[in-house]
Amino acid sequence: MDELNNNIMEEVMRRLSAVASSSEEKCCEEAAAATSPTCNLTEYVGTTMGHTIGLVIANVDHQVHEALKIDPKYRAIGIISDRVGAGPQIFAADEAVKATNSECLLVECPRDTEGGAGHGSLIIFGAEDVSDARRAVEVCLREIPRTMGDVYGNSAGHLEFQYSARASYVLNKVWGAPIGKAFGITVGAPAGIGVVLADAASKAATIDAVTIATPGNGGTSFSNEVNYFFSGDSGAVKQAIIAARDVGLQLLKALAPDEELKSTTTPYIL
Amino acid sequence: MDELNNNIMEEVMRRLSAVASSSEEKCCEEAAAATSPTCNLTEYVGTTMGHTIGLVIANVDHQVHEALKIDPKYRAIGIISDRVGAGPQIFAADEAVKATNSECLLVECPRDTEGGAGHGSLIIFGAEDVSDARRAVEVCLREIPRTMGDVYGNSAGHLEFQYSARASYVLNKVWGAPIGKAFGITVGAPAGIGVVLADAASKAATIDAVTIATPGNGGTSFSNEVNYFFSGDSGAVKQAIIAARDVGLQLLKALAPDEELKSTTTPYIL
Amino acid sequence: MDELNNNIMEEVMRRLSAVASSSEEKCCEEAAAATSPTCNLTEYVGTTMGHTIGLVIANVDHQVHEALKIDPKYRAIGIISDRVGAGPQIFAADEAVKATNSECLLVECPRDTEGGAGHGSLIIFGAEDVSDARRAVEVCLREIPRTMGDVYGNSAGHLEFQYSARASYVLNKVWGAPIGKAFGITVGAPAGIGVVLADAASKAATIDAVTIATPGNGGTSFSNEVNYFFSGDSGAVKQAIIAARDVGLQLLKALAPDEELKSTTTPYIL
Repeated sequence: MDELNNNIMEEVMRRLSAVASSSEEKCCEEAAAATSPTCNLTEYVGTTMGHTIGLVIANVDHQVHEALKIDPKYRAIGIISDRVGAGPQIFAADEAVKATNSECLLVECPRDTEGGAGHGSLIIFGAEDVSDARRAVEVCLREIPRTMGDVYGNSAGHLEFQYSARASYVLNKVWGAPIGKAFGITVGAPAGIGVVLADAASKAATIDAVTIATPGNGGTSFSNEVNYFFSGDSGAVKQAIIAARDVGLQLLKALAPDEELKSTTTPYIL
Repeated sequence: MDELNNNIMEEVMRRLSAVASSSEEKCCEEAAAATSPTCNLTEYVGTTMGHTIGLVIANVDHQVHEALKIDPKYRAIGIISDRVGAGPQIFAADEAVKATNSECLLVECPRDTEGGAGHGSLIIFGAEDVSDARRAVEVCLREIPRTMGDVYGNSAGHLEFQYSARASYVLNKVWGAPIGKAFGITVGAPAGIGVVLADAASKAATIDAVTIATPGNGGTSFSNEVNYFFSGDSGAVKQAIIAARDVGLQLLKALAPDEELKSTTTPYIL
Repeated sequence: MDELNNNIMEEVMRRLSAVASSSEEKCCEEAAAATSPTCNLTEYVGTTMGHTIGLVIANVDHQVHEALKIDPKYRAIGIISDRVGAGPQIFAADEAVKATNSECLLVECPRDTEGGAGHGSLIIFGAEDVSDARRAVEVCLREIPRTMGDVYGNSAGHLEFQYSARASYVLNKVWGAPIGKAFGITVGAPAGIGVVLADAASKAATIDAVTIATPGNGGTSFSNEVNYFFSGDSGAVKQAIIAARDVGLQLLKALAPDEELKSTTTPYIL
């Protein structure tokens, strides 16, 4: 009987996964896939959770170069692109640029998360040499399971927290983070939760607000998030995040009390 | 055997609800949840259908105040935020402002509905006293099941109709409704249905067009809706809505003939 | 036993289809519905795949005319509106305008695909006579199953390729296609795949880039796509598309290796 049940459930789940993967959690819970052995294209670097793909082009065609308004000196580009998540990929990209001889040329955040409330991302690294561009993509892919650690979701929305002890060029380019200082973000969806997170963060420690993104102020792509960006002393930034996270988990839980609300991977802000 | 079937179906539905709640109907059909006993934060007011949460902050942190560009005299803010629906929440907010000593400071409509064709909303009320801000949120939460009454959805899209006998400050702020006059809206998704609704409403009675929102004209957040806003004599506005609703139900039904198309709660425009 | 399994699966699939149709594939795989016999409104023309509906208004109300900023000389309008897909509908509309005595007055692309990574569309044709407007809608509906032929999707994203041997007014209006020349597009989602498609197309043949659309450059509605538009010699445009398609199928497959990646209908670019 149980076997029957299991057979049926397997069949059901198989069909389901063909129908849709429109929930953020599902996507985030995917095991971080290693480089797929099925793709032999030279442009392919690898994939990871959040339907993230890493790609590289050794010598970008001049018409595409121009259309994308990329400085011609970057003959090689690395690409990170995903459906679920922008913060995790952008913080990972900041580490990638620190660790490699590459620049971040473009960061755009489509309205996505496969039916969820937030963004995907498109990140382009530039390098003069293809091995540097590829290396940036590899570092970024490797960092993403870590930066997914403080992403929490249920059917009603999601929360995200990111922390960097020393913000570098990507965080500066995207959100105006002061370079070299500790930098944190709190994300709440639906957006109203994000307002309370911002307030809780600001009250918990002495931090400097950098900016706030709301659904309609241009800081998001009309996503259902309020995102708060702040810098400051390393301990204060962490303390602000931890206080906001505690509040956010309670509020998002209230919208879906029967669902477990847990880290996508393993929390890293301790 | 039936029991077996039921057991299996329960298991299936349990897993399903964990996978996704990306359909508008599902969300709307949720019973209007009462104040959850599970959240003890002082900021928490309650939840209702459409994954709507009501929140209050007694004394907003000055940095957040400033970042949100809110007049400092409103020390307390009330927040309504949801994933599914903007019209129902905005019409409810209009009643809330009428009934309480509060102002509506911000209304933004993210592109959402959890994979559906429309919006969520973020509404912020301001008050000098926290009890007034909380009261506005409570009234709004209480009104939403009513204003969800003329929301109809199937897998192909949705229809929404709202009517106010006397538009007040929120409807004026968001859509330019003439204050004190009857005001109505028709919403059709996919957008083409909304064009026909606008035409049907205009032909059915002598109304004054206030504005129209299309996917690309800035009136929506790139949602797949055409929304028509009109005022006029109370009887005429109602008559226009009822005529449009009759047309809309037939058109949306044509896109998913096998699905029942019914009110999310109970129609209130009679 | 198999019968039991089948009974259960039918029940499951029935409930599923009531819950959501938020996946692009599902929608695209729907049989192209013929004119539904269930809708008797004079405005109704028909439906087809992608949750596409065709509508016509014989004599548009003057207030709606004005609000939509449509030239008053077009008393009749035809409407194509859908949830899943913009390219297929726009290329079909180009054929419709070629084949009928109508003009294309408006094309807007909401952020949609029912939880997917792309767009829906809203297309309005104008004509002085209602029979011409209706005819344009009919031709467009009839063409869509063909132009869905090079749309490929899985749970991670989608690819789309379109080709016209002779671009006409709609392709010119929407994307600046040179009139009378061969015109092609490549679409990749998530967006990074679209960057590689653009590069592959440009390198495969001598084509002229017309423009590129990215999630944040205004060419999309914050969708998770990069779209490349090019014209040139008929053979070259086809060759570029075919090369890009070959690359795209491998990359999108890498994000969901266990899912079959096949044409929504039948590929037409050979």
